[in-house]
Amino acid sequence: MVVASASLDTLCINSIRMLAVDAINKSNSGHPGLPMGCAPMGYVLWDKFLKHNPQNPKWFNRDRFVLSAGHGCMLLYALLHLTGYESVSIEDIKQFRQWGSRTPGHPETFETPGVEVTTGPLGAGISNAVGLAIAEAHLAAKFNKPDCKLVDHYTYAIMGDGCNQEGVSGEACSLAGHLKLGKLIALYDDNHITIDGKTDVSFTEDVLKRYEAYGWHVQHVQDGNVDIKGIEQAIEKAKAVTDKPSLIKITTTIGYGSPNKSDTAGVHGAPLGSDETTLTRQQLGWSYAPFEVPQEVYDYFRQAVKRGLSQEAEWNETLNNYKSRYTSEGAEFERMLRGDLPLGWDKDLPSYTPSDNALASRKHSQICLGLLGPNLPELIGGSADLTHSNYTDIKGETGSFQAKSPEKRYLHFGVREHAMAAILNGIAYHGSGLIPYGGTFLVFADYMRGSMRLSALSGLGVIYVLTHDSIGVGEDGPTHQPVETIPSLRAMPNMLVFRPGDGNETSGAYKIAIQNRNRPSVLALSRQNIVNQANSSIEKVAFGGYILEDCEGLPDLILIGTGSELDLCVQAGKQLTQEGHKVRVVSMPCVELFEEQPNSYKESVLPKSVRRRIVVEAASSYGWHKYIGLDGTTVTMDRFGSSAPGDTCMEKFGFTLPNVIAKAKALLS
Amino acid sequence: MVVASASLDTLCINSIRMLAVDAINKSNSGHPGLPMGCAPMGYVLWDKFLKHNPQNPKWFNRDRFVLSAGHGCMLLYALLHLTGYESVSIEDIKQFRQWGSRTPGHPETFETPGVEVTTGPLGAGISNAVGLAIAEAHLAAKFNKPDCKLVDHYTYAIMGDGCNQEGVSGEACSLAGHLKLGKLIALYDDNHITIDGKTDVSFTEDVLKRYEAYGWHVQHVQDGNVDIKGIEQAIEKAKAVTDKPSLIKITTTIGYGSPNKSDTAGVHGAPLGSDETTLTRQQLGWSYAPFEVPQEVYDYFRQAVKRGLSQEAEWNETLNNYKSRYTSEGAEFERMLRGDLPLGWDKDLPSYTPSDNALASRKHSQICLGLLGPNLPELIGGSADLTHSNYTDIKGETGSFQAKSPEKRYLHFGVREHAMAAILNGIAYHGSGLIPYGGTFLVFADYMRGSMRLSALSGLGVIYVLTHDSIGVGEDGPTHQPVETIPSLRAMPNMLVFRPGDGNETSGAYKIAIQNRNRPSVLALSRQNIVNQANSSIEKVAFGGYILEDCEGLPDLILIGTGSELDLCVQAGKQLTQEGHKVRVVSMPCVELFEEQPNSYKESVLPKSVRRRIVVEAASSYGWHKYIGLDGTTVTMDRFGSSAPGDTCMEKFGFTLPNVIAKAKALLS
Repeated sequence: MVVASASLDTLCINSIRMLAVDAINKSNSGHPGLPMGCAPMGYVLWDKFLKHNPQNPKWFNRDRFVLSAGHGCMLLYALLHLTGYESVSIEDIKQFRQWGSRTPGHPETFETPGVEVTTGPLGAGISNAVGLAIAEAHLAAKFNKPDCKLVDHYTYAIMGDGCNQEGVSGEACSLAGHLKLGKLIALYDDNHITIDGKTDVSFTEDVLKRYEAYGWHVQHVQDGNVDIKGIEQAIEKAKAVTDKPSLIKITTTIGYGSPNKSDTAGVHGAPLGSDETTLTRQQLGWSYAPFEVPQEVYDYFRQAVKRGLSQEAEWNETLNNYKSRYTSEGAEFERMLRGDLPLGWDKDLPSYTPSDNALASRKHSQICLGLLGPNLPELIGGSADLTHSNYTDIKGETGSFQAKSPEKRYLHFGVREHAMAAILNGIAYHGSGLIPYGGTFLVFADYMRGSMRLSALSGLGVIYVLTHDSIGVGEDGPTHQPVETIPSLRAMPNMLVFRPGDGNETSGAYKIAIQNRNRPSVLALSRQNIVNQANSSIEKVAFGGYILEDCEGLPDLILIGTGSELDLCVQAGKQLTQEGHKVRVVSMPCVELFEEQPNSYKESVLPKSVRRRIVVEAASSYGWHKYIGLDGTTVTMDRFGSSAPGDTCMEKFGFTLPNVIAKAKALLS
Repeated sequence: MVVASASLDTLCINSIRMLAVDAINKSNSGHPGLPMGCAPMGYVLWDKFLKHNPQNPKWFNRDRFVLSAGHGCMLLYALLHLTGYESVSIEDIKQFRQWGSRTPGHPETFETPGVEVTTGPLGAGISNAVGLAIAEAHLAAKFNKPDCKLVDHYTYAIMGDGCNQEGVSGEACSLAGHLKLGKLIALYDDNHITIDGKTDVSFTEDVLKRYEAYGWHVQHVQDGNVDIKGIEQAIEKAKAVTDKPSLIKITTTIGYGSPNKSDTAGVHGAPLGSDETTLTRQQLGWSYAPFEVPQEVYDYFRQAVKRGLSQEAEWNETLNNYKSRYTSEGAEFERMLRGDLPLGWDKDLPSYTPSDNALASRKHSQICLGLLGPNLPELIGGSADLTHSNYTDIKGETGSFQAKSPEKRYLHFGVREHAMAAILNGIAYHGSGLIPYGGTFLVFADYMRGSMRLSALSGLGVIYVLTHDSIGVGEDGPTHQPVETIPSLRAMPNMLVFRPGDGNETSGAYKIAIQNRNRPSVLALSRQNIVNQANSSIEKVAFGGYILEDCEGLPDLILIGTGSELDLCVQAGKQLTQEGHKVRVVSMPCVELFEEQPNSYKESVLPKSVRRRIVVEAASSYGWHKYIGLDGTTVTMDRFGSSAPGDTCMEKFGFTLPNVIAKAKALLS
């Protein structure tokens, strides 16, 4: 390895700074402050430590790097470009923040190979990093052998003051400390500035002490602007501490190099502009043209390509040795990496008939997890401290993922919903075939919605097991009874929201959720028992909505139901049929999948000419008019609930056969 | 004051425990563990410290008590009952968790006088308590005089492990430490148990050290089950520390008294049942019948009534002195307490004509805040570190609420959206006429949705100033571009969601938001400039939706627009009119208010017979079919956005005149 001279170090670091300055000036939009301040730590980390292969950004055993302070994305793009990633050419950098470019305003995994995690919403990235480190620890425990370390990488993150102010990072880092994730190393860019000005207007806590309280190893590099050696030594020390995650607070100057704007909020999120850029060039002694990188800087940085190729080649040899010595584990490992599901993974998914006992769909979910578990070793998940309410355990398995048992796949997240979702995202980002799931009460989706949105945006196949899905919750009352939660999730692009109406539909929802490795799913599940339908099936769930009960010819009325209210529609349909009406009952376990069907199918289920339509769902009617139009009606829950036994709530709020019949007759009359 | 003997102490404490046990057994639902474990701290706090008047739960200068661990509500109901609140009779306790009772499954302010804060969602209560303490500190600084302490009370909270695991509490308590809120005292029920079992499955951090890092004063009472004196001394010490909030960790046994279930997760959230109750009675030496409270216990506890009357009488004297010495301040104080807005508070709200400059609605919002500020001294708020993006400052005012300047009304929340919302709720819960507002980017409503829901549920007039309301955000990209956020908020009961289309509508939205002291409002505001309409007005916003431009007779087509897309509808309407079509343009700044109008009005705006309808809004179409039915169409944003200049995003995603015209013509053909 060539060691850079002090002057070459500086040239490399200033290359990062000036690429950021130039790109942000050109786009007239962006955040130069962080890249200018963090260039030294970024340089040291990527040059001295980060194990990666620029020619294969998806190489499995690479170290993961998360820029939790995502607004500083030019730092990451500069590092990707300088170390030789094809995904970020100098032309891409010139297209920073432009339509169709690979250098969007915050890092997005789906736009730029080499970006591990979509960041921007603060606190999320470091929490994803906890998930990445959990994935590494789990897979290492699962696959590594005394003579063969197949899984072995670090997870690094750069986080800012904002990340440390957000509660989600506190949740995730508390759990990381508990789990003693020794291969998680976070660099904290302590630059004293947030958008509102000096951090001392709102943030004067002792961050290192807080992390120490979480059980982290902490260090402080006093001058992160110039102390390259200090940063290097701190990362070395952090790596040496194997039983604790590490936080290295690195004090920097935001916008370092800008004589008038450094150390001010003005450089956080606005271009330097031409005059200040000229002064910055002078101050940094930078004589190159905009977007010009000195050849010696390229030469030095791009050693990463050769290094990466050789590191990957070495690992490939390890993999080959592993496969020859541990045939079945090796095949399993490669299967997971390919993202193939095991043969017969779904063979035990149960189906039901009306003679089977009525069960809560959360119970059906538990049965599914118990039957999927043995056939799907990549399933990994848990609950935000509601295991025995969400029924998220995998039957027959004991113990949980802990510092001393990382081979286990059950995660006790604690009462930390937001961190749970972010960690599940991190496990999915790891790209190793793990299928993450997590449970809480549906109403508390609100606590983790920020990260659920990122699951959807980044196309992560996280499965959210959200039980207690309506006023059927009962006594816990309106704080615990979701009303608007289901519509609020249905409104989110790229999120599948299932509300299964019985056992078959719960199995069907799991089948689709497992298959969808590139989009997240919500399973909204009942606390209370629901009967099994005669005409439901696992397969029909794939249509999103389907005819469950029908009349001959065109119906006079269509009843649309979901979840625990599906049977109410069936009962109403029966009675109305007996009274001579032509009634169809449509089950709609997943609106999003129904929307994806061809128009001909949708028309066959909901003929446009049939305008008498009723939706019955114990949730807000918001969104259902897409199916009932201006002429239909709903039996829905358009107010907050109340504390009382679940059956009472259902009755008082109108989820009764007489009420549905009355609404139907009003339409039919 | 009568001092209770040790045996009377025990009898009082066991009365709390057994009321909880009996009520939860009777309802066969609830959480006995916390009330049994926290009965000693509840007793000491309410008996020895809490300043309150059971006969006037709304007495202004009372200490505020927040049961952040809301599932333990029977602790609170028992204390309310025992100290003589009319709102919780023994019959009410027997109706625990039943339909229509005043003792719901979690404390709800709107059901039970004496309950200060609706709790249940963990972490929220302690964060509300920070808001209560901020309100007290602000009002004390604003009104108190060297010779007259008008505002002077403590805020106490009981929180559990769950509250401490939730990130929102970390955010709020970090800020509380920064602000040195010396009159905030939290008792932390350290009982080692959460629902998943021992806390050591997920929570092994050093909580006291963490709070010390936040700048809190911390103490530990080792045996909270019996060390009454220790609890008392700790609270005394906490009160003596006036420049820091205090956390007292009190180690207890969950379900104390139950021989087989105490110290297990089994007693957290399930009734003891009859056998274990019998054993518990034996263990506690409790010989009374279910729901029976020994007379000496009532006699002792209900001294609170006399004490409270005398405390309030004394304060009333203070108030009278104050009013006589400080006439105008006294009148102002009483006006605020009555909840009356000052005369002419809205007189400076600006109105606009098309000749006025196009401005971003966030800029209109800033103008409104600047003009409301001087006329509305009770306005208090800030931003989650986006002051210069949200434009949430009050023009002409400098400085912010800090430890040394609590009289200021601008709050720097830091990058802590969830805490911001919870603190705003706390300020509203204070009931002193303060009008709290807070800003962040609209997309980050997801971070604080848990507390926004509580604003809506509890009927708190919080104003959420949420800027950057669409893909118009531009370069920051899809992580920062709301798409589903507006529909997800519209789905929430009791939340007014405004998306004003110009300056007049922004003024109108503020007018209504300020007037609505019992429900929260969201102002969704543009980053980009929008032109002023000829026919908009402040007053029309109150209708939620209204005819902005019209044709003669029944229209062939109705264009419905909001916010930054309103003008696109107007332009399209003009062009289509020129081409001979009869077109109406409806502005819909607030769907919820439109829904509240009489059917005749709604029919006059959107006649049922006119089925050709188009909604134009740069957000998900989810929910709009209520107005376009099965026959209309939308120009909406049903996918995530992209990083590019805002104008480019708008154009690429179809928010152009040609696209709206084309969609209209397709409908008209």
